[in-house]
Amino acid sequence: MSEQPAPALTPVSAQPAGPAGVPAEAPSASPHAGPLPENVAAALKRDSAGLVAAVVQQFDTNEVLMLGWMDDEALHRTMTTGRVTFYSRSRQEYWRKGDTSGHVQWVKSVAMDCDGDALLIRVDQVGAACHTGTRTCFDGRELQVSTASTGTAGQAI
Amino acid sequence: MSEQPAPALTPVSAQPAGPAGVPAEAPSASPHAGPLPENVAAALKRDSAGLVAAVVQQFDTNEVLMLGWMDDEALHRTMTTGRVTFYSRSRQEYWRKGDTSGHVQWVKSVAMDCDGDALLIRVDQVGAACHTGTRTCFDGRELQVSTASTGTAGQAI
Repeated sequence: MSEQPAPALTPVSAQPAGPAGVPAEAPSASPHAGPLPENVAAALKRDSAGLVAAVVQQFDTNEVLMLGWMDDEALHRTMTTGRVTFYSRSRQEYWRKGDTSGHVQWVKSVAMDCDGDALLIRVDQVGAACHTGTRTCFDGRELQVSTASTGTAGQAI
Repeated sequence: MSEQPAPALTPVSAQPAGPAGVPAEAPSASPHAGPLPENVAAALKRDSAGLVAAVVQQFDTNEVLMLGWMDDEALHRTMTTGRVTFYSRSRQEYWRKGDTSGHVQWVKSVAMDCDGDALLIRVDQVGAACHTGTRTCFDGRELQVSTASTGTAGQAI
């Protein structure tokens, strides 16, 4: 089901293993077993660190705000609390968007892609999504490219 | 500059190391040295497989079409040819979107995010972006969530 075992993560809080009435994975010592519905856990294709990419999009304008990373527990929290929670690859800890900045992401919907290695989280973003203060993490960060229509600085094929 | 060395990839085609007039990295035996402008190569934060996540978005509707993976060479081809090229993690090879299906992605712009581990590729998508035939890889694949506004199946906090 997953490409690699999830990393040993710090113990999570006292949340129950799964919401009432939602099927849970069979009890296991695996760190990523438990919190997600069984069909979701089975469909996820995690990377070697136990993570999937989560694209965050503003629900009404369709802006792509940022990309973060989620393990099973972060996705569980995102699906059940109304707020987006990520797993930080650099700090190796969970972080809930907005707890420090106030720039909360209210969850509108979550979808998994066709091969299970990416999530699309549609949200209502309060304020700036980027820690640098820009609305999205991609604003003002365009690279120079050649396009087929303009053909600048390169040859379209 | 990168978190980990890039994997040993199959040799690329006879494309030049970089477009004329674009600064290239200093010559090196590293598999990911060469094709990208030095400032872009320096800013990229690749995962342990030498890859970054690439979010593909329809340029005029802002739909998120799919998420793929790029190493330096795939990004170079995307920036210089007018067509989106990915690196397949499962097949461990380059693939240019549309070569098999005809569902070409014409590049409109490329942006790197604030911490260099994600790309936003805005394109004009021909036909379905998903190999399953749906317009996007997320269509019809929503997970059941609770949201702060509705509070279904869980408690918002």
